[in-house]
Amino acid sequence: MGKFNKVAIIGVGEIGGSIGRRLLKRKLAGEVVGIGRHKSSLKKALSAKTVHKTTLSLENGVKDADLIVISTPVNSIIELAKEAARHAKAGAIITDAGSTKKIIVEKLEKVLPGKVRFVGSHPMAGSEKGGPLAADGDLFVNRVCFITETKHTDRKALGMVRMFWEKMGSKTIVISPDKHDKVVAKISQMVHIVASALVIANKDTLRYAASGFRDTTRIALSNPDLWDDICMTNNKNIGVSLSGLIEVLEKFRKAILTKDASAIKRMLKEAQALRKTLNQNAR
Amino acid sequence: MGKFNKVAIIGVGEIGGSIGRRLLKRKLAGEVVGIGRHKSSLKKALSAKTVHKTTLSLENGVKDADLIVISTPVNSIIELAKEAARHAKAGAIITDAGSTKKIIVEKLEKVLPGKVRFVGSHPMAGSEKGGPLAADGDLFVNRVCFITETKHTDRKALGMVRMFWEKMGSKTIVISPDKHDKVVAKISQMVHIVASALVIANKDTLRYAASGFRDTTRIALSNPDLWDDICMTNNKNIGVSLSGLIEVLEKFRKAILTKDASAIKRMLKEAQALRKTLNQNAR
Repeated sequence: MGKFNKVAIIGVGEIGGSIGRRLLKRKLAGEVVGIGRHKSSLKKALSAKTVHKTTLSLENGVKDADLIVISTPVNSIIELAKEAARHAKAGAIITDAGSTKKIIVEKLEKVLPGKVRFVGSHPMAGSEKGGPLAADGDLFVNRVCFITETKHTDRKALGMVRMFWEKMGSKTIVISPDKHDKVVAKISQMVHIVASALVIANKDTLRYAASGFRDTTRIALSNPDLWDDICMTNNKNIGVSLSGLIEVLEKFRKAILTKDASAIKRMLKEAQALRKTLNQNAR
Repeated sequence: MGKFNKVAIIGVGEIGGSIGRRLLKRKLAGEVVGIGRHKSSLKKALSAKTVHKTTLSLENGVKDADLIVISTPVNSIIELAKEAARHAKAGAIITDAGSTKKIIVEKLEKVLPGKVRFVGSHPMAGSEKGGPLAADGDLFVNRVCFITETKHTDRKALGMVRMFWEKMGSKTIVISPDKHDKVVAKISQMVHIVASALVIANKDTLRYAASGFRDTTRIALSNPDLWDDICMTNNKNIGVSLSGLIEVLEKFRKAILTKDASAIKRMLKEAQALRKTLNQNAR
């Protein structure tokens, strides 16, 4: 990747802001424009030094941009991409940061005009804080970023988007939208549901919580509006993932109730060994 | 609590070592003796400055101690307490740090000789690291420590044990052994099982894990041997707790599969609000 002349970021929350912060800090783009619907967020984005300038006008913001990144909640991405495409220059690349990919990518690869190319992305990063002030130029460092590929994906645009995320510090993984949605349903979306379920199941016992409980349920602090969207757009895969987890929990429950010590220990050991493999590349 | 003349700690791992470290650092005891079964652990305990001296002999170690703390795996506590009681001086107080209380307390309050008093404890602390070198003089600060009370509990001994844990920095909660076991099954033991189950359910997708997954499953790194014990000694309560959690997960699953947005959002919001209450007194 050379340097982008102009990058437009639609949505200047934690994800968009973190992208902009790194673009600015590392001088990866000549101009970074933040586009948002609320003056207050745009003001915060400017003061947090995540963009060079801001605008409420999507049309003005995306004009002449080489790269347009949409970092808004999942349910608004398709419409915003279509609108951005109408005003984008020929050759512009549009990508997003949404947690669901199949619906978004299938739709956009069909409807966007030929002069712009869409490639789906999903950086596996973000805290439970959210918002422009949570921006962090290192948010994506060593984190997985999925980039989608289908038979319709423009190879050159895919390469550009991939390099873009590598400049963000991410470990990129090229994947089909379908496989992506199945994977994140298990590794991310289901985990969020479980954290929330643990909190609800402990409604009456929360005051006894120790640090293990706090860690395990931290992600239940995330914005319900975002997660609600994600659940709706990837609902079948999350349902299947939850069934798989409930099956494992039932195995534990059976082994515990019948005092099957060897089964309990086998499962705990398996989980410990698997979890240890994650620490080697922990951030 | 005045100062103890002599405290004997049976088991010099993370919990016992952290107790000793604080006793030494704050000069809360004239003498702190670490008792263990392995020379190597005792050597580490000494070098980590968690005890004044060490011994392989339980008899010599507990002799003349005012307070004997048993911080070994759950399944060895009863036998060690009985042995300690045989060699303890009249008036000595024995407590433990086991995660299961009903079996231990009911048994020990019955069988210990009248000259010593047993009061059960359970500090809600400890990392997944374990071992003498994980000792930390502030491990118990602001953490809940349960102290058991039954109709047989000696009130004066209970007061002493409570003050002891307050000197450790803990927030003490006096509770019946039965209620304790029900509470920790939900807030702690079940949470561990869930973390392990999440890892197992993600066996094939672990390489895509992000920070949320790492946090949520950190406790799956804990020693399977300890947790196996805990599952066996509190199995009915953990079984009931798991059933309760599975019920909540099924509610989520149903709402997600039927795209019942309002139910999903309601549950996510409830979990977020409940979880937020924990941060106010987070450590």
